[in-house]
Amino acid sequence: MILLALDPGTATTGYAVAETRGDSLVPIVYGVIRTSSKLPHPERLKCIYDDLAKLIDEHHPEALVVERLFFCNNEQTALAVGRTLGVAMLIAAQRGIEVVEYTPLQVKSAVVGYGAADKRQVQYMVQRILKLAEPPKPDDAADALALCITHSNSRKMNAVRGNTAG
Amino acid sequence: MILLALDPGTATTGYAVAETRGDSLVPIVYGVIRTSSKLPHPERLKCIYDDLAKLIDEHHPEALVVERLFFCNNEQTALAVGRTLGVAMLIAAQRGIEVVEYTPLQVKSAVVGYGAADKRQVQYMVQRILKLAEPPKPDDAADALALCITHSNSRKMNAVRGNTAG
Repeated sequence: MILLALDPGTATTGYAVAETRGDSLVPIVYGVIRTSSKLPHPERLKCIYDDLAKLIDEHHPEALVVERLFFCNNEQTALAVGRTLGVAMLIAAQRGIEVVEYTPLQVKSAVVGYGAADKRQVQYMVQRILKLAEPPKPDDAADALALCITHSNSRKMNAVRGNTAG
Repeated sequence: MILLALDPGTATTGYAVAETRGDSLVPIVYGVIRTSSKLPHPERLKCIYDDLAKLIDEHHPEALVVERLFFCNNEQTALAVGRTLGVAMLIAAQRGIEVVEYTPLQVKSAVVGYGAADKRQVQYMVQRILKLAEPPKPDDAADALALCITHSNSRKMNAVRGNTAG
């Protein structure tokens, strides 16, 4: 199963495409979508939409994994993140891609093992789990990879539970 | 000039299409886009996008007028409004429609004459200014009409200023 994960921010949106192969998760591509702060918001959202469309056309993900935000620093950040999330959720619905959300606590617990982990610990564990030669950079891309790991683990757990129950 | 105004909320998004004709503003259609709370967010955003596409295809607005939010009740509201705003701004950028934002203070000042006006006063003044037979309902649609009035007035003021300067 191919996953597309997004960590939407105000100026940069981290993304990661990864494939579950048996028990392992193989990163295919990751990085950040940057939009110029000189562009008006609608143009920036169109750039993000077009970049997501390219990623989807190229990799055909079956799930879009995003962070479920509960507390932002302020309402302006929440509005800006919301705008980008809206565009991402829209394109997922248009392409029939399932959207899955995880809280930051779920992501940190899945990747590092405890919910109070900091960004460097997440980055370090993402590198180890995915056997990357270097720490994934920038932070937003590492966070998107962490979302892929979280969803992959969650699916494995559900499969185990399903087998046990059956 | 034809204006499309939106008051995006969590469950309902007020809309209004109005045309500036000489000194007056003529409402063409207004109401609310409702999405079922039973649908997941991505599907609801797709419904809003599709409804906006229909309005744009039918009326060919040259400007999208939206409220610039500064303070929401909480981050969850800001996120939800942000998602809808993101979808609206995206479709405007895709169709080459200019996006104009006004603060609630600007809207209330333009329509009622003072920034602390309540919803009923806005509704009453919208009815008077647009010479409607009944008060515009629901509130979200009245707010969208108020945005049209605000932008229409602002354009008139700019035209006067431009003439004086020239």
